[in-house]
Amino acid sequence: VRSRAQPAGWRRGAARASPTSREVAELAGVSRSAVSRTFTPDASVSERTRRKVLDAAAKLGYQPDVIARSLITRRSRLVGLIMGEWDNPFYTTMLRGFSEKLQVRDYQVILLTRGPDGGVDGAVRLLLQYRVDGIVLVSCEPGAAVARDCERAGVRLVLVNREAGALRAASIVADSIRIGRDVADLLLRGGYERLAIVRGDPSLPTGIVRTRAFKAAVAASKRARVLIDQTGVLGYAAGRRFVIEAMKGEPRPDAIFCSSDLTAIGVLDGARLDLGIAVPEALAVVGFGDGPAAALGAYDLTTVRLPVERLIDASIEALLSEQAPDPARPVVVEAGIVQRATVRLVRVPSRG
Amino acid sequence: VRSRAQPAGWRRGAARASPTSREVAELAGVSRSAVSRTFTPDASVSERTRRKVLDAAAKLGYQPDVIARSLITRRSRLVGLIMGEWDNPFYTTMLRGFSEKLQVRDYQVILLTRGPDGGVDGAVRLLLQYRVDGIVLVSCEPGAAVARDCERAGVRLVLVNREAGALRAASIVADSIRIGRDVADLLLRGGYERLAIVRGDPSLPTGIVRTRAFKAAVAASKRARVLIDQTGVLGYAAGRRFVIEAMKGEPRPDAIFCSSDLTAIGVLDGARLDLGIAVPEALAVVGFGDGPAAALGAYDLTTVRLPVERLIDASIEALLSEQAPDPARPVVVEAGIVQRATVRLVRVPSRG
Repeated sequence: VRSRAQPAGWRRGAARASPTSREVAELAGVSRSAVSRTFTPDASVSERTRRKVLDAAAKLGYQPDVIARSLITRRSRLVGLIMGEWDNPFYTTMLRGFSEKLQVRDYQVILLTRGPDGGVDGAVRLLLQYRVDGIVLVSCEPGAAVARDCERAGVRLVLVNREAGALRAASIVADSIRIGRDVADLLLRGGYERLAIVRGDPSLPTGIVRTRAFKAAVAASKRARVLIDQTGVLGYAAGRRFVIEAMKGEPRPDAIFCSSDLTAIGVLDGARLDLGIAVPEALAVVGFGDGPAAALGAYDLTTVRLPVERLIDASIEALLSEQAPDPARPVVVEAGIVQRATVRLVRVPSRG
Repeated sequence: VRSRAQPAGWRRGAARASPTSREVAELAGVSRSAVSRTFTPDASVSERTRRKVLDAAAKLGYQPDVIARSLITRRSRLVGLIMGEWDNPFYTTMLRGFSEKLQVRDYQVILLTRGPDGGVDGAVRLLLQYRVDGIVLVSCEPGAAVARDCERAGVRLVLVNREAGALRAASIVADSIRIGRDVADLLLRGGYERLAIVRGDPSLPTGIVRTRAFKAAVAASKRARVLIDQTGVLGYAAGRRFVIEAMKGEPRPDAIFCSSDLTAIGVLDGARLDLGIAVPEALAVVGFGDGPAAALGAYDLTTVRLPVERLIDASIEALLSEQAPDPARPVVVEAGIVQRATVRLVRVPSRG
């Protein structure tokens, strides 16, 4: 059901005709072209002229009209951002970074949470109506048909945390293979042998790749095994429930790698507060994301740090670069492990 | 320094002319007016015609042009949202709610983080260029001159968490007087007598009002006093440092009311982990916001719950209602206290 509400302004019919660029030019004693150049990013205009124009514009309350200009340039200086996921604080950090960094480059963000139909395609179609200069999709992806519409309209698509596959889209991802392998190595070095790996949505490609790499590294070690590989476990409450169930079985896991920090913190509280299990002595817990909660004193969580700044910078580069990115070659940024107190530390003998 | 980067599309010059509404009308076998009505929110069109138009539009890859239409209607169906603060998770919850709820009503959000100049006025001026239908300012406010520009342009301003004062703007606030009084009452009933109140930015009006009400309620009790009223204490690390300092003095506070959950969690970790103080027996701690961290098992923080949903709904109502809101009368929504484990509970004798 669509609302019939329309914004009414302060007083209906009270809006005065806006001042024109001609009036600004007259008051400033410059040409209309000088006014136009003053308000066009990257256009050349002397500082003295610019000052005169800005003073006159302020006196008259003049606003240059990006919208009218976009009819000529076909550029709105708007970038569409579609949030496919909100629950991990990692994604709001990302949203803030995009907004601030694009703003510095004279672009503004139109923010959508998937589409009016609950899907991504509707959101992309809506953004095309606004003549956006490009679209960033965070942890979601459009269908092939709408991706072709974007290509036809000359609007670039950038997928964050998703590989493009057959889509014509740029792609920025963290190195999931390396993350899976590094966490397995950390747990093996700590002497843990009965491992569990849990995540939320089973269809997320990054989780599938990470899990596969984790299992491969454990199998290669020949002295540990993966007891549990479970999906549908995401968030604090789910993590806390999961550990209580998992510890009823035999053999019990002695290490749990979660796909979010909050899941891991739920596992920690379940293990310590509900079951009285000592972490990291009897159980190791690893999170994912390195959000603000991971560093809190009561948790001090060992976790995977995603390189947010580099994901943002690489995405903006893919969005605005002169050269069209190659969909077949995703930009891969490295993640790292933050070692805190929830995995037993074993000194690694230095090599050489 | 402005970047010279311009989005390049996939292949320069490859963009085809977009299909027109005339082509859609021909393929669907309907009038152009029927096409236009199908893509105009709230316009009347039969379901059968709508279906035909949508099918034809999908086949041709037709996008109705919101931007071109806005030249006629002067309405872009864009709402500007200026985030004055990001650090409290409360504000990202709010952002998400605005985006989702406006989207359902066919409005999209342009997100700005203050202005290119670091200020609010620049952000508002930029939004006027995009012909937004209204502007929501979260925890920030514009100057009087730019507010007048908005009024002239018929663009409504809605301040969230700020009173309008002399500005022509709608205002949605939580009841700071009641919050200050209720938290004081809670601590007094718990038998605490040496109280501290800390917050971040000393100029925030909500904090000033809350602190004043808190002190008045404590003074009226005649059996407790406010030992410490300190500003510049915001966030986990600051809270942890603060409690260590505060406990060096004599007399020591036995209750601390913080202006954010994270500050309170820092105080808790400082008290328990660094100083070995028992909470809530020897020290009460109260947070503000009831974000996700407050409910974590290791903290179980007593805190002020801000009515996020009601703040969002009231703001959208003020933005889109037919009737212009009265700047002199802010919409006040009630907050509540979530009693958890960091304040000693004393049963209140039931009245009557």
